[in-house]
Amino acid sequence: MTDYRRLRVALLGAGAVGSQVAALLRQHADELADRAGARLELAGIAVRDIDAKRDVDLPRELFTTDAESLIVGSDIVIELMGGIEPARAYLLHAINSGADIVTANKALLATHGPEIFDAADQVGAEVYYEAAAAGAIPIIRPLRDSLAGDRVQRIMGIVNGTTNYILDRMDTEGAEFADVLANAQRLGYAEADPTADVEGYDAAQKAAILASLAFHTTVPLDAVHREGITSIDRSMMDAARHAGYVIKLLAVCERLVEASGESISVRVYPALVDRKHPLASVHGANNAVFVQAEAAGNLMFYGAGAGGVQTASAVLGDVVSAARRHIAGGVGVGESTLANLPIVPIGRVTTRYQITLEVDDRPGVLATVASTLSEGRVSIATVEQTVITAGNGEPGVARLVIGTHKAVEQDLSDTVERLAASGVVERVVSVLRVEGD
Amino acid sequence: MTDYRRLRVALLGAGAVGSQVAALLRQHADELADRAGARLELAGIAVRDIDAKRDVDLPRELFTTDAESLIVGSDIVIELMGGIEPARAYLLHAINSGADIVTANKALLATHGPEIFDAADQVGAEVYYEAAAAGAIPIIRPLRDSLAGDRVQRIMGIVNGTTNYILDRMDTEGAEFADVLANAQRLGYAEADPTADVEGYDAAQKAAILASLAFHTTVPLDAVHREGITSIDRSMMDAARHAGYVIKLLAVCERLVEASGESISVRVYPALVDRKHPLASVHGANNAVFVQAEAAGNLMFYGAGAGGVQTASAVLGDVVSAARRHIAGGVGVGESTLANLPIVPIGRVTTRYQITLEVDDRPGVLATVASTLSEGRVSIATVEQTVITAGNGEPGVARLVIGTHKAVEQDLSDTVERLAASGVVERVVSVLRVEGD
Repeated sequence: MTDYRRLRVALLGAGAVGSQVAALLRQHADELADRAGARLELAGIAVRDIDAKRDVDLPRELFTTDAESLIVGSDIVIELMGGIEPARAYLLHAINSGADIVTANKALLATHGPEIFDAADQVGAEVYYEAAAAGAIPIIRPLRDSLAGDRVQRIMGIVNGTTNYILDRMDTEGAEFADVLANAQRLGYAEADPTADVEGYDAAQKAAILASLAFHTTVPLDAVHREGITSIDRSMMDAARHAGYVIKLLAVCERLVEASGESISVRVYPALVDRKHPLASVHGANNAVFVQAEAAGNLMFYGAGAGGVQTASAVLGDVVSAARRHIAGGVGVGESTLANLPIVPIGRVTTRYQITLEVDDRPGVLATVASTLSEGRVSIATVEQTVITAGNGEPGVARLVIGTHKAVEQDLSDTVERLAASGVVERVVSVLRVEGD
Repeated sequence: MTDYRRLRVALLGAGAVGSQVAALLRQHADELADRAGARLELAGIAVRDIDAKRDVDLPRELFTTDAESLIVGSDIVIELMGGIEPARAYLLHAINSGADIVTANKALLATHGPEIFDAADQVGAEVYYEAAAAGAIPIIRPLRDSLAGDRVQRIMGIVNGTTNYILDRMDTEGAEFADVLANAQRLGYAEADPTADVEGYDAAQKAAILASLAFHTTVPLDAVHREGITSIDRSMMDAARHAGYVIKLLAVCERLVEASGESISVRVYPALVDRKHPLASVHGANNAVFVQAEAAGNLMFYGAGAGGVQTASAVLGDVVSAARRHIAGGVGVGESTLANLPIVPIGRVTTRYQITLEVDDRPGVLATVASTLSEGRVSIATVEQTVITAGNGEPGVARLVIGTHKAVEQDLSDTVERLAASGVVERVVSVLRVEGD
């Protein structure tokens, strides 16, 4: 066996991902040493409660509650605690103690990314975070390195497994949101408090990370427009299917080129996706990131978006990269925010829309709707009207599904408000954006 | 504008990819400088014929026929000439002149990879080759870096755009091989001499590169089992569709775990792929690489497998990586062949098979076929028999489609030979492997 240099590795957190990382580090120690050119010595695992139940068996003597002391003298610190504090404080401490850091903490990077990256820059440390966006799918290196000579135009990502699982089940089984959610919670695909997933917070964090990287721009989390999937019901799913679409929760990161210069838009919302689009066939809890680049054209990266052992794979890839850098020397790529493009608010974004209305079934109603749209600068591409209830003397109710050409979000929402107040519209059933064409 | 250090870049070759690389280097010079931390100065383009027609307009003074002189003093040499010589000699010259090299030359890497990598190792130079496998799709970095802490079990790749285009057209239009090929040649999807594509040579080169990287093992090109698609006809396509499959030319790189230890198999052949498998929906000239890893699970990388500007994106990503290394210092990852697993011959590989036979339609025939298979250690999973021509007194002809359980290739081919000679089999219509389940 080659006599490799030893690197001291500290692990913070032993949850679903952390315990798998610890297990793999021990199990594949020889192979990892060959790959990294150094022996990765797990010095300890910092946890809150040493006696908590873990997913895998690990020697008790590895555990400590004293993260601060564990960090000191470590070459590589892996942070898998999640949350903002004390993760942030520990990572800054690690950076200032001379360690490279590996983290899967999307919440922290999306909110305090610039602080962490700046601190690392100051001392020449590296921050690796492949596991922070789209789990096991290699997307950070492709964006940062492989596409470094190209210009990303747009990213459309299914980056939250829980919501994709729920929407996929609703689509394939015709089930209601609440039933699928309850089932997903039973199976462990959704947490007891599903807010972070179903309201799009998790996806928004990942969108901020991906957009920062793709557009070399600091994207604060509050600049990401966010809508969840709780309003999606079975009838919307059915209507989408009928029209050749499927509803997916998308993280959309887009470069906008206008006469005044370039800007970007970052948004998370449920959108209609054509069934022929590669993203439409991403089923279950899988994730996929579809990237459109100026020269490379369309690329897609597909795989498991979550899961302890899957995410551990991405973490270990980063650990090996960090180790290689320790051995080889030199400074890594670092984070570039040189472009720092302006981020436009959602109101200025243009997409296609599908508007579903219930209207009075009487003469002149379609004309009123059409002229309201036209006055609001929303151009109609397709219309489908079906009678829901016949009138029997009274005016009945009809359903109107309107597909628009590209329209500006602010124009569209103003127009929908005017439609709702127009007297001929009984109910705005849904307004969904159409992405991916 | 930041005052960056200048790096001298030499380009060898100005074909479809080379001319796009030159154009993008000039067009995005400022942005590339920001990304790389250095100005990438295109010192010249070495070509055979300065007056040849190019895809893009480039200043005549950039061109030279003296590659040797251009290389001297360059920091980064980009080789896009293709072929073995003089590309090999120039790259060795570049390495020994102190340059890092970027190449898309799969033929060279598949045949002389170890020589090039060793030469680079000796002087601490780096070899970047993202564009050598699967065009614009980032697959080299994911395999080398992102999955460095994982164990790849299997790669199934659609890595040749021409053959995927042909098979996809045959499948969707029910057309014959020769007609689609002629059409592909007219459209520029296939070369005038299509041998390298349709006989699987191109895919075999890429398979050797991917397997070397995934399994940390030197894979010589002649260790790759190779079959092309020229024997695939419309009736085989129809039969595949009928059975829920599509025929794809696959590069399969597999880790075999046996009691005696680990080994690998690398092979290229047309195979039946279940229509529900993600690879089945890779259409047209697109490429995709499906990776199964122990921890990460299933991953897929999808995109354009060829095309001048698409491939140029991958080349420029490598150029930026090389430039960053020049600025930051340190030694790169290098190629690891530490595992050097034995490569098993095709005869020892196990897969499922679908065997289509024309047999005499008379009593006892199925029994003979079944016992021949059983004696040959080939276990039957499914059988479908249909009458083709009725006998009218004489024995008629029936078609027998047999799906097998996993069998050893050598056993299978011996058994098919015995079947062919058994007297009850009129014709072996096709023997296809089934991959991806």
